[in-house]
Amino acid sequence: MDYRFAARMQSAPPSFLGRLFAVSNRPGVISFAGGLPSADCIDVRGLAAAAASVFAEEGRVALQYSTTDGYLPLREYIAERYRKRLGLDADPSEIQIVNGSQQCLDLVAKIFLDRGDPVVMERPGYLGAIEAFSLYEPVFHEVPLDEHGPDPDALARVVREFEPKFFYGIPNSQNPSGRTYSPESRAAVAEVLGETLMYEDDAFGELFFDGRPRVPIKRLLPDQTLLSGSFSKIVAPGMRIGWLYAPSGVLARFNTAKQAADLHSNFLCQKVLHRYLATSDLDEHLRRVTARYHRNCRIMCDLLDDRFPPGMTHTVPEGGMFLMATLPPGMDSMEVFEAGVREGVAVLPGHPFYVSGGGERAIRLNFSASSEEEIKEGLGRLSRVIR
Amino acid sequence: MDYRFAARMQSAPPSFLGRLFAVSNRPGVISFAGGLPSADCIDVRGLAAAAASVFAEEGRVALQYSTTDGYLPLREYIAERYRKRLGLDADPSEIQIVNGSQQCLDLVAKIFLDRGDPVVMERPGYLGAIEAFSLYEPVFHEVPLDEHGPDPDALARVVREFEPKFFYGIPNSQNPSGRTYSPESRAAVAEVLGETLMYEDDAFGELFFDGRPRVPIKRLLPDQTLLSGSFSKIVAPGMRIGWLYAPSGVLARFNTAKQAADLHSNFLCQKVLHRYLATSDLDEHLRRVTARYHRNCRIMCDLLDDRFPPGMTHTVPEGGMFLMATLPPGMDSMEVFEAGVREGVAVLPGHPFYVSGGGERAIRLNFSASSEEEIKEGLGRLSRVIR
Repeated sequence: MDYRFAARMQSAPPSFLGRLFAVSNRPGVISFAGGLPSADCIDVRGLAAAAASVFAEEGRVALQYSTTDGYLPLREYIAERYRKRLGLDADPSEIQIVNGSQQCLDLVAKIFLDRGDPVVMERPGYLGAIEAFSLYEPVFHEVPLDEHGPDPDALARVVREFEPKFFYGIPNSQNPSGRTYSPESRAAVAEVLGETLMYEDDAFGELFFDGRPRVPIKRLLPDQTLLSGSFSKIVAPGMRIGWLYAPSGVLARFNTAKQAADLHSNFLCQKVLHRYLATSDLDEHLRRVTARYHRNCRIMCDLLDDRFPPGMTHTVPEGGMFLMATLPPGMDSMEVFEAGVREGVAVLPGHPFYVSGGGERAIRLNFSASSEEEIKEGLGRLSRVIR
Repeated sequence: MDYRFAARMQSAPPSFLGRLFAVSNRPGVISFAGGLPSADCIDVRGLAAAAASVFAEEGRVALQYSTTDGYLPLREYIAERYRKRLGLDADPSEIQIVNGSQQCLDLVAKIFLDRGDPVVMERPGYLGAIEAFSLYEPVFHEVPLDEHGPDPDALARVVREFEPKFFYGIPNSQNPSGRTYSPESRAAVAEVLGETLMYEDDAFGELFFDGRPRVPIKRLLPDQTLLSGSFSKIVAPGMRIGWLYAPSGVLARFNTAKQAADLHSNFLCQKVLHRYLATSDLDEHLRRVTARYHRNCRIMCDLLDDRFPPGMTHTVPEGGMFLMATLPPGMDSMEVFEAGVREGVAVLPGHPFYVSGGGERAIRLNFSASSEEEIKEGLGRLSRVIR
């Protein structure tokens, strides 16, 4: 039977990520292709205790329908943490709970983008964002990202010429590059954006190896920045809980879209998560997690420096879960992906992160999900593939 | 600051339901306005035990990222139940887990509707669907729903004249009317649809008072019916788990949209729910739930017959959670709503269920969430308002 799909689906092939992850998860394959937090860093016992106490004390309420905005004590916790950690003047009424920050990508695009609307992305840009935004048929404009941040002149040009609906960026440990905007870059971005909205995706800001928070662009442009966050990388992804922190004029529309999308996020898990946060030490937990990721990242960087051909370069992350490597001239990341899977190691080819083509030599490597031994073995295999 | 929202948001006022429910939930107000299952019918103890065992045995996996399609054993359970209960030839690969069936409304609209596309709704139609579809800017066509089902001649006319993308209907205990399509109506709908897609929303098919399943339109038009279901009304809404059962050609696109929307549904709760279903007797649970709803419904119908002015009529549901009453000529449901809240009883005014206007005398009454005593007291208050 012929189904008459919407035009937007023509530009959406079955997700590249989905197909790749299926291959990467074959038994025996060491995968640096995914984006999983370390399973060892999920506090199963703490969350189990929180769940047991929610069921015992308020199970009946937690299992019912709830409000679209999300569980108020959880939003209060998020606002309080913004105030203390980042000096933001956050109020719970400016925070909406969503199903992981991926849902922010969908709903922000939904409330802002008409077909053909201009949007600015980093180059390379986050694939999940490209996939979510694409379904609203915008025109993408890219601004190159280097080790300091997005090119401010390029950003200024795009803003002037196209009046984009928003600039989507990940200032902290960007996905896929692992880069962090410098303080000067943040100021420059805020400056050149003028009246343009900033969509600041902060999935990794709690995962800096030095434990120091970086100043969010939200602090520089409070009325025009949408700041998204997630518990997936710092507590557990399986509960799918993230949030958007945005000016109330935006949040009201976002709430309307959220209600139409799925009424509200999982209420049971919002309660479990809040109970967990209220009874455990998130900072201590994050010190353990980042210590491990830092060690893994260092091992990976050292191996890339020592065991690979000189033409191979890589970024040096300050935090997060990813780095980006550039293959020696003449090599192609899709071929390395295919050959790697045969050799038992999976990397993520970079070209889908480049909206208008390019990135054929780029690969993204995840260092959070693997053990030290897996990193050593996996990079050994990868170096054989590349040599 | 002026935000440049997408055109679709112009047609989406802050949700009517949201504002109404806020008023309805004032202390002291007996609310028939909502759509909550009875809290007494949620098996908190059983779900707590299921959660404890998932945490103990596979917490680490349940708290990680998972696949977009959903937990396979849960999809197998759903397919098996379709085969046994409804004689459908269902395969788990045709089922996608979502965040409650509201998410089906959003994602089906997303994959099928371009701006201006024709869609057919029942009149009155489900408000959640109207709100979800509206954000994709379709043109709505209505087909009157009477006690047998949708008017087949009107449906045939709309199909012929407008070639709609799909017909959205709730054949079992429709929301808001409480009506159930007759067997003849189902056959007629399947007949006149021709090649048009059927979107069959079956949130209430497990809640017939007589316990007998009705033949779904999916069985008559297997290749062109999207059948959505939900655990919200039969187990617990707070976990936000529903599904779409659709031909694989549709499901592949639906999966792409789901991945872009939020990667996957809450994996922890999918596992908890499956564990609960595998270790409890859902049929026995549903017998208890429907016995209670049947009793409540009968009390409500009797009171409407006995205590209200003769000009007042109402539907007589065979199941589900709602009935629809029509106020005596000259009365207005918004005025009754306002006066009712002052008197301590909330009803849902019917006019938002009528896309192209009308329904001023209609009110929707929920009979699942209240106790017998609340129904008696609440309808007493309502009768005073109306007299």
